[in-house]
Amino acid sequence: MNAPAHIKDSDRVVNPAERLMVMAENEMQAVNDIIRDRMQSPIGMIPDLAEHLVGAGGKRLRPLLTIASAQLCGGATADHHKLAAAVEFIHSATLLHDDVIDESDLRRGRKVANRIWGNSASILVGDFLFARAFNLMVETSSLEALDILSTASSVIAEGEVHQLAALRKIDISEQSYMDIIGAKTAALFAAACEVSPVILNAPLETQSAMRDYGINLGLAFQLVDDALDYGGLESALGKSVGDDFREGKLTLPVIRAIAQARTENDTESLEFWTRVMSDYQQTDTDLERAVSLLRQSGALSSTLDLARDYAAKAQKNLNQFDDCDWKQTLKALANFVVDRIT
Amino acid sequence: MNAPAHIKDSDRVVNPAERLMVMAENEMQAVNDIIRDRMQSPIGMIPDLAEHLVGAGGKRLRPLLTIASAQLCGGATADHHKLAAAVEFIHSATLLHDDVIDESDLRRGRKVANRIWGNSASILVGDFLFARAFNLMVETSSLEALDILSTASSVIAEGEVHQLAALRKIDISEQSYMDIIGAKTAALFAAACEVSPVILNAPLETQSAMRDYGINLGLAFQLVDDALDYGGLESALGKSVGDDFREGKLTLPVIRAIAQARTENDTESLEFWTRVMSDYQQTDTDLERAVSLLRQSGALSSTLDLARDYAAKAQKNLNQFDDCDWKQTLKALANFVVDRIT
Repeated sequence: MNAPAHIKDSDRVVNPAERLMVMAENEMQAVNDIIRDRMQSPIGMIPDLAEHLVGAGGKRLRPLLTIASAQLCGGATADHHKLAAAVEFIHSATLLHDDVIDESDLRRGRKVANRIWGNSASILVGDFLFARAFNLMVETSSLEALDILSTASSVIAEGEVHQLAALRKIDISEQSYMDIIGAKTAALFAAACEVSPVILNAPLETQSAMRDYGINLGLAFQLVDDALDYGGLESALGKSVGDDFREGKLTLPVIRAIAQARTENDTESLEFWTRVMSDYQQTDTDLERAVSLLRQSGALSSTLDLARDYAAKAQKNLNQFDDCDWKQTLKALANFVVDRIT
Repeated sequence: MNAPAHIKDSDRVVNPAERLMVMAENEMQAVNDIIRDRMQSPIGMIPDLAEHLVGAGGKRLRPLLTIASAQLCGGATADHHKLAAAVEFIHSATLLHDDVIDESDLRRGRKVANRIWGNSASILVGDFLFARAFNLMVETSSLEALDILSTASSVIAEGEVHQLAALRKIDISEQSYMDIIGAKTAALFAAACEVSPVILNAPLETQSAMRDYGINLGLAFQLVDDALDYGGLESALGKSVGDDFREGKLTLPVIRAIAQARTENDTESLEFWTRVMSDYQQTDTDLERAVSLLRQSGALSSTLDLARDYAAKAQKNLNQFDDCDWKQTLKALANFVVDRIT
């Protein structure tokens, strides 16, 4: 974030996410200052816990999208900084609650906050950050931004409940899965992109183009995440692999592997998936077998193909803009979201 | 809520809370319709869980304050109905999260939602209701209402974290206790009362009078609640007694009993409080002993005296209003909040 000036040389920046961060360096510094300022409280547990999560870094991808969208659509203002910080607070609140729900151990390479301060503190500090997000939005005086981000917030919660209700349901449809990731992930990407042209009073088609870009980028992002949770196409199984498997979360790779096993009357595979996912009886070697089945069946590569389709859609959503560095880098970002692993 | 018309006869209504509910019957019906409508979702777990909490009744005290304040200050509008529903959603969200945190068993005479649907569902449906509260506020187009209620929401979360951090801290000051209940309880009472004159563009002194009424009523309410948790002055110990004790929550009765034991060099009592609260080693007969100490020391009656002081302040806050049924009943409500038990 505090990269020295010479790093600005674009040749030295390898990927589009990093390049965007350098292009938006001053803006993102302002966003970070707001984040630091607004997570303060006389109740020490709040900044301590928030600092643990926020200080661990993270990609700041969502607020970066708000800033990059603003730059593409006319230029980021002080209100964009506040909305970008609000977007990051909403995201942080969902992470804190997710970590309680998923019973995770690690987040951004650190022990999750609830393992240090307890579940209660994580729930309540999540609530605090969520409320602070709305304080920030109110300060922009934009009812439209408030509408977009409060709607996104209820859609995210709805998607999280949907995902919870679908755990271990081996018959979940691809459509249900897409609904879930559209709500839990893409809704915030979309809102993060849409608010920027909206508060600039950009034309409606610009607003909806940025919204659609966010949706498609978010879907591509989550599809890749779900493929990565099984190591992607080639990588060895690291310790960040298998969370979805252990939680009985039916993601697209598994849904497609099961569908193919049905088509091929592959009873052995079907029994395996039913045992590990639906009956939730997993042994030490099951994850390895799952990965092997997902690779052999082509389910992982078809999931990544779908992610590539959404990334291509996201790029097309930007066609209406005049050519500029922001447009090119946001287009490159769509590819990067997929290519980061394959 | 659906009381037949003849119940409107004021002679048959015994307490001010019920009387307010009858006076505001049509308005509260509109509020309830919004609550029912906005807790819907295609994800069945959401309305099921919300219905379990909301359908169990509850006093609807906070939305009733929004409506009664509106009537006192010029008349309730459709926007007041939405804000009243938003206030109830914020309250419901905190109840769902509180029940996870406190590991409670019962709420409103029913098994708590998290014992049926699990902690994860309660956390996420709480988030959903909280987001829906903001959707409703946005629909009123009042940035001032959004400001008041989003600020109250972050103050509530801050108060809850403060309370969590103060668990088992035997040296907590009266000031810290007042800060906690001011934040976790009185802030929402205050916001519920204040938003009504604010969106009616009532004079600033009217707005601050209603805000102060809410604060003082909320403080009285929580002080009484905390005394009731030890059975109040006389009642036998029912099963709803002792939650704070079991959680190691230092409330004013205990803080004052400890202070008095210190003054009197009553080592035995001090050792008792340290063991049960700070060291958190409780046996079956300890609650009975705690109640006995709280009654003998006068800590319970002095807590109720303080509640009475705040109730009197709340009544004075209404002095500026012309005499009317709403004013008289809101004044009577302040007494009732204290007298419900003594």
